[in-house]
Amino acid sequence: MKVELGQKNYLYPALVVLVGANVNGKPNYTPVAHTGLWITRSSVALTGNSHSNKGIKENGTFSFNIPSQEQLILTDYCGLVSGKDTDKGALFTNFYGELGTAPMIEECPLNMEFRVVETTVSPRSRGVPADVYIGEIIATYCNEDVLTDGELDLMKVKPYFVSARDLFYYGLGERIARDGIGEQLKEKQEK
Amino acid sequence: MKVELGQKNYLYPALVVLVGANVNGKPNYTPVAHTGLWITRSSVALTGNSHSNKGIKENGTFSFNIPSQEQLILTDYCGLVSGKDTDKGALFTNFYGELGTAPMIEECPLNMEFRVVETTVSPRSRGVPADVYIGEIIATYCNEDVLTDGELDLMKVKPYFVSARDLFYYGLGERIARDGIGEQLKEKQEK
Repeated sequence: MKVELGQKNYLYPALVVLVGANVNGKPNYTPVAHTGLWITRSSVALTGNSHSNKGIKENGTFSFNIPSQEQLILTDYCGLVSGKDTDKGALFTNFYGELGTAPMIEECPLNMEFRVVETTVSPRSRGVPADVYIGEIIATYCNEDVLTDGELDLMKVKPYFVSARDLFYYGLGERIARDGIGEQLKEKQEK
Repeated sequence: MKVELGQKNYLYPALVVLVGANVNGKPNYTPVAHTGLWITRSSVALTGNSHSNKGIKENGTFSFNIPSQEQLILTDYCGLVSGKDTDKGALFTNFYGELGTAPMIEECPLNMEFRVVETTVSPRSRGVPADVYIGEIIATYCNEDVLTDGELDLMKVKPYFVSARDLFYYGLGERIARDGIGEQLKEKQEK
């Protein structure tokens, strides 16, 4: 039995990302769930009047910083205060990569820097439309201690997710299967 | 110590979604990790020559079907065979919603239908560029048995994630905190 939930986007839970941007030359960070992945590009939607939004417009660059579960409270806090009043760069150790204008967070296990290649808007039911930035990946960095045999190990990164529908954060579960496990079914079908 | 991982997008793990589209009037489904969320819209990137891509172009509509962990093998299988040779609609019980042309999967606990409002492309290092579709949410449906007190319960949906970097599937972990838990830190800072 299907139940209709209305005209609401339920694409959750979403990976929690701290978006970084320089605003007036100073690092600012804001947690977002509204990101997207498409091959070598990523998207991020930000409320029109937000401080980070101003910074992305300024420089045409931004960063994604994946917080681990240990940084959950600090990351949530970053969403409760505005960079207009609070120096959020001072909460972290900041570093810059190839672009030079996309601040990244040393303490976050995984960091990516992007150059904006396309922009669009998304309407909102209330308030101003969100600006959507599509960035091309320039470089990715991780902390040495989240590598296993030289490869990024998500069980060490400990990323987490948020659902704006039930207002909970969720941890990452265990590895449950290998990508390609349907091969067995394919072989059976082909017989 | 930061280690550079090269010019690769590591925005993983990503929620596994079965994208639905009618191709020549018949339902077709393909699993994707390359989706995006922006308020009332979602994006999906599909390889230019894929069967589902043809269907989305045909109708200007698509669906997202969130498989549960129980559907992992069948979902993976859908990514190993093409709708050109295999009737993937026959693997599921199909239903249609308001749009009438975006097929959805009864067995998947959560379904969303979208109307395409914008299209763009994303380059690829090898092969043809991917088509990117941005859809406006039209309606969302769920199975009655994943509701708790009338609200969607992600612990019952049991969605799962994929990382194209390590080629593993990951389950959803437990609820670890409430959205807004940073409020305690905000109060402390304000004192």
